[in-house]
Amino acid sequence: MAEIAFPAPDPEILARRDAIVAGLARLVAPECLITEADGRRPFETDALTAYRRLPMAVVLPRTTEEVSAVLGFLNAEGVKVVARGAGTSLAGGAIPQEDAVVVGVSKMNRILDIDYASRTMRVEAGITNLAVTGAVAADGFFYAPDPSSQLACTIAGNIAMNSGGAHCLKYGVTTNNILGVKMVLIDGTVVELGGDALDAPGLDLLGLVIGSEGQLGIVTEATLRILHAAEGARPVLFGFPTSEAAGAAVAAIIGAGIIPVAMEFMDRPAIAICEAYAKAGYPLDVEAMLIIEVEGSDAEMDATLKRIIAIAQAHGVTTIRESRSAMETAAIWKGRKSAFGATGRVADYICMDGTIPTGRLPEVLRAMEEIATGYGLRVANVFHAGDGNLHPLILYNINDPDEQARAEAAGNDILKLCVDVGGCLTGEHGVGIEKRELMTHQFAPVDLEQQMRVRAVFDPAWLLNPAKVFPLEGRWQGR
Amino acid sequence: MAEIAFPAPDPEILARRDAIVAGLARLVAPECLITEADGRRPFETDALTAYRRLPMAVVLPRTTEEVSAVLGFLNAEGVKVVARGAGTSLAGGAIPQEDAVVVGVSKMNRILDIDYASRTMRVEAGITNLAVTGAVAADGFFYAPDPSSQLACTIAGNIAMNSGGAHCLKYGVTTNNILGVKMVLIDGTVVELGGDALDAPGLDLLGLVIGSEGQLGIVTEATLRILHAAEGARPVLFGFPTSEAAGAAVAAIIGAGIIPVAMEFMDRPAIAICEAYAKAGYPLDVEAMLIIEVEGSDAEMDATLKRIIAIAQAHGVTTIRESRSAMETAAIWKGRKSAFGATGRVADYICMDGTIPTGRLPEVLRAMEEIATGYGLRVANVFHAGDGNLHPLILYNINDPDEQARAEAAGNDILKLCVDVGGCLTGEHGVGIEKRELMTHQFAPVDLEQQMRVRAVFDPAWLLNPAKVFPLEGRWQGR
Repeated sequence: MAEIAFPAPDPEILARRDAIVAGLARLVAPECLITEADGRRPFETDALTAYRRLPMAVVLPRTTEEVSAVLGFLNAEGVKVVARGAGTSLAGGAIPQEDAVVVGVSKMNRILDIDYASRTMRVEAGITNLAVTGAVAADGFFYAPDPSSQLACTIAGNIAMNSGGAHCLKYGVTTNNILGVKMVLIDGTVVELGGDALDAPGLDLLGLVIGSEGQLGIVTEATLRILHAAEGARPVLFGFPTSEAAGAAVAAIIGAGIIPVAMEFMDRPAIAICEAYAKAGYPLDVEAMLIIEVEGSDAEMDATLKRIIAIAQAHGVTTIRESRSAMETAAIWKGRKSAFGATGRVADYICMDGTIPTGRLPEVLRAMEEIATGYGLRVANVFHAGDGNLHPLILYNINDPDEQARAEAAGNDILKLCVDVGGCLTGEHGVGIEKRELMTHQFAPVDLEQQMRVRAVFDPAWLLNPAKVFPLEGRWQGR
Repeated sequence: MAEIAFPAPDPEILARRDAIVAGLARLVAPECLITEADGRRPFETDALTAYRRLPMAVVLPRTTEEVSAVLGFLNAEGVKVVARGAGTSLAGGAIPQEDAVVVGVSKMNRILDIDYASRTMRVEAGITNLAVTGAVAADGFFYAPDPSSQLACTIAGNIAMNSGGAHCLKYGVTTNNILGVKMVLIDGTVVELGGDALDAPGLDLLGLVIGSEGQLGIVTEATLRILHAAEGARPVLFGFPTSEAAGAAVAAIIGAGIIPVAMEFMDRPAIAICEAYAKAGYPLDVEAMLIIEVEGSDAEMDATLKRIIAIAQAHGVTTIRESRSAMETAAIWKGRKSAFGATGRVADYICMDGTIPTGRLPEVLRAMEEIATGYGLRVANVFHAGDGNLHPLILYNINDPDEQARAEAAGNDILKLCVDVGGCLTGEHGVGIEKRELMTHQFAPVDLEQQMRVRAVFDPAWLLNPAKVFPLEGRWQGR
């Protein structure tokens, strides 16, 4: 990726800032509107910290009605809107622009209803991912998607990015676990998509909204599918002498039709970084490690593990270590889920998010290594192997502009590689600003145009998160 | 439902029929174009046999390129198009109109690729549902959605209706099992939606297309997710003294977090009808029966069944019978899957397809009974209980217009009841023409308008399956 371009702010909008802020002040309580520069500062970037833009104002409404009033007003004024959950986007999906107002949902975080008999839960969309599971865990239930950022990230952000997580191999990603949403359109209209029951007649606008990165509207409430936790769960560490061998074992396990709850991959650099941080007992003498979690009764787990171990052995596994306690299990997952944070302690990095057919894993691992070496860089690999969702971390020094440029070029090449083997640019982090210009590598012009035409139905003036997802050049004439 | 209205055919189009047919003849081989009335007759209705309209012509293209040429031509001529798979729609989704051309995909039925390592399969969309599983069954794999019509229905039709089936409780419906499609737009443009890998960047147009009932384009190829069959599977019959008790047991099983592979409900009338046909050993002395299928190793099945049996006993179960052989299992499923056909041997019926939150099952069963009795009619209930997808069969005599009117009114009331308890008009049969006018009960005008505006992006002149899904009155001004 070359340096990411932001559109120049509209001077006409900037000139009207005082009137716009005054208008917002008439719609929400003082504690819901942030206008001072110091207050706006925390909203100028997200987890893609390399870029930052200070928004005109930040609004944190408390109700759907307030969101409706705010959007209706901003739409009438022609002001751009960047929706925000917790700002944990790794692709810059929540980075604002100077002539935009941030509308955050963090104050809307109540649980509205829990219905175990229907296995559903209704929440305000600003609730954090982990708080959802926290509310039902004592009764043995959980909400399946579990991004690494689950302590902070919101359901609204999960819906915007169609977030996944380590356990989505078995349980699906966000779109498989949301039954309905309440959403505010840019003109203030409130729509209900989906419902409390399976499927819904007519067009699946719910599916369209999930993963639309804040460009179709702002989701304020959601009905979630909750699941009963299995009797037991046990992660097992498998060490391999090469990354290719581990990748081939993953492809063989999937090819044999086994679906563990989770199947996570780490290579030697990632193992070393995460073990130093989490003390999880990861093997340090292997080139690659798989964390494979099985669940069910002890008998079920033993039976599934037996099949997995046989396949791992056929691929030259050198270490096998089962978790024997809840504490050990917690440490194993803490190590994996803190991978990005732990890497940040030792180097700057770009985290990519390509997705490939699992059968192509060994060759792609090899090719990624070659790409990084070609740019004189190191890569740490830690990703959801079972569903082919790669997260190579390209390590570089942010204070060395040449190294940053090489890192971005390597990331670019890796994502193109994913597309070329039949995969795609993003599994769960979204396109954001980061991969915007790469969309032309994934899609033919006619495919992109069709997406933009659908987008324009929801947001004709292109006010919602406008600098994201679609390449700046060649945008559909209708916008 | 009152008598369903069809729009009057456009006399200007009818007058140009010869020229239109001649144009089609230039685009496809003679054996792919049906113009004689006798040849068109099989295409005048679908499984909602109460209504029929003879189309102007029927085209059965052999390639995506031919579909593209045919649609491009018909679009330029302003001719309506009704896409058709196998014509098994129960909601009239494939019934043509006199001024429309039927474009069927039945000649496009090849398997293009099977990739076990990535657990995917690429097919032409006219292949039948059962042929997909048939192609991989010997290797231990299967395609999960299994509508009762699976011997005949096509993947294209499954995609159009987002079809389910008995085993979708565990494995999801069509939208959870399709990774990508090739689709031809009304102007002949060929687009690729989704891909071979998990998720895809940008807007989820694939999710939008699945369940869109032939109104956004014609799907010609699809990449399917295939799964490995479990070690074993065992259906168990549970007899209950009342429908409410069976319904409460279903809600309790789901509420306890157990997800069997299938959980099917039949009441006394349905049991009698299906047992007479399939000789499956269904208990005839109970008011309601559940077929609950568990799968896995013998130990897993025993453990899950133990929990299910305990719940069933708490709800007054009077008969429990496990299948003890593959032949018995086949008979049990044959009985269930032939329910509609077997009912057709004893009476005319309307099959409804409402979906409700599973927790509301007992009260809805009671209310449906009251509705039918109020109209002096009998209902046979046979449905996917686990995911709340009801299929009440309202029995009536098609030669008694008064009884037919009462049956349609009862069906109407039942669907409204489903919506009122938080469910929806259709689980898997689609809206078609049958439930078109009821969409206003499900959706607010603003919700329907948004759907129609999105539809218009794909088909601005409203040529694709135009009389379906959306109420004839109050269609969006843009069409």
